[in-house]
Amino acid sequence: MTATQPELTASPGNGGVDAAVAAARRVIAALLHAGDGTPAEMTEIAGRLNAVADHLEEHAPAVADRLVDMWAGEGVTRHDPVTGPENAIAPPLHLVGLADGGIEGKVTLGMPYQGPPGCVHGGISALLLDHTLGVANHWAGESGMTGTLTLRYHRTTPLFEELTVTARQDSVEGRKIFTSGTISAGGQVCVSAEGIFVNKHLARPR
Amino acid sequence: MTATQPELTASPGNGGVDAAVAAARRVIAALLHAGDGTPAEMTEIAGRLNAVADHLEEHAPAVADRLVDMWAGEGVTRHDPVTGPENAIAPPLHLVGLADGGIEGKVTLGMPYQGPPGCVHGGISALLLDHTLGVANHWAGESGMTGTLTLRYHRTTPLFEELTVTARQDSVEGRKIFTSGTISAGGQVCVSAEGIFVNKHLARPR
Repeated sequence: MTATQPELTASPGNGGVDAAVAAARRVIAALLHAGDGTPAEMTEIAGRLNAVADHLEEHAPAVADRLVDMWAGEGVTRHDPVTGPENAIAPPLHLVGLADGGIEGKVTLGMPYQGPPGCVHGGISALLLDHTLGVANHWAGESGMTGTLTLRYHRTTPLFEELTVTARQDSVEGRKIFTSGTISAGGQVCVSAEGIFVNKHLARPR
Repeated sequence: MTATQPELTASPGNGGVDAAVAAARRVIAALLHAGDGTPAEMTEIAGRLNAVADHLEEHAPAVADRLVDMWAGEGVTRHDPVTGPENAIAPPLHLVGLADGGIEGKVTLGMPYQGPPGCVHGGISALLLDHTLGVANHWAGESGMTGTLTLRYHRTTPLFEELTVTARQDSVEGRKIFTSGTISAGGQVCVSAEGIFVNKHLARPR
């Protein structure tokens, strides 16, 4: 039944920059899992990563040009730190539209997203929810920028377990948009969020 | 006069895993700056990054052992996604204690932290503030886990400009801890946060 759910975020491809970014995510997690290592080993790893960065930086367009490029068109963005297949910081979270007007995504977070021992960082939950509420507004029709966001932490959010992130637009009053969402694990709500968004958009760079 | 400000977060070293993580941060940003590149180039970059991840994963301790290790001792953590020198997701933010009881850090965020065009993602501001409020509680003495966090977005927060992140513990009532903070750019508050923390700590893994 899920085959017809509209995709609200970019799907990572198997090649191109998306594949390199997926590999970079593995490096981020592996460095954290490795911990200290031996100094000689880590110096060698640093050298290999700096060589990759040197190569990419040499061939990268100017920042201003890249900003225009990444915001071109009207489709979903590919660079944000929550869903972006081109952003190695993003888990990434993949969101789909639900028939009831809400949206939903599943994600499992590893060690880079840790706050308390074995648990997701409260600020990472805030990041995921802020973004998901924003996407829920796009899906509902009226969208804008975050004005106020209130997060309630009901229980710890586990690492290494599948989380469900949901959001929906509750109401629109003039330029104010009221939106709410949750992060759940094993059917229990871990974090809930309520946002008031303002119907305002920054111009895309050109 | 700042030489005597106590450091509240781990300082990155010039070698070891910290140097490899600093290089990984360059890779994350460079991939985003590069955008699509050519398919052949990106396939080669993905191969080089996967080789680094393969090598690190082969030699990494078991996750349970690593969790015990990273939480050993009583000092500041080195792995969190905001200040951690071992976490490539962290900008990293470096926080110092102020004589008046508050804390402060300066940070400049690049493209991986983008939300609206050219601006910091609202959820990234939430991540930075949640963490900074927590560190302010440690600095003040009574600390705990986030119960409620309210963020107000006053104006957009710029990328590529130095931001000042501050926080202070305002009061303690029983087990409830009231803490607030801001992110400013050019002397103007962009985002403010108020948190209610609960004096409770998860046991460290052992």
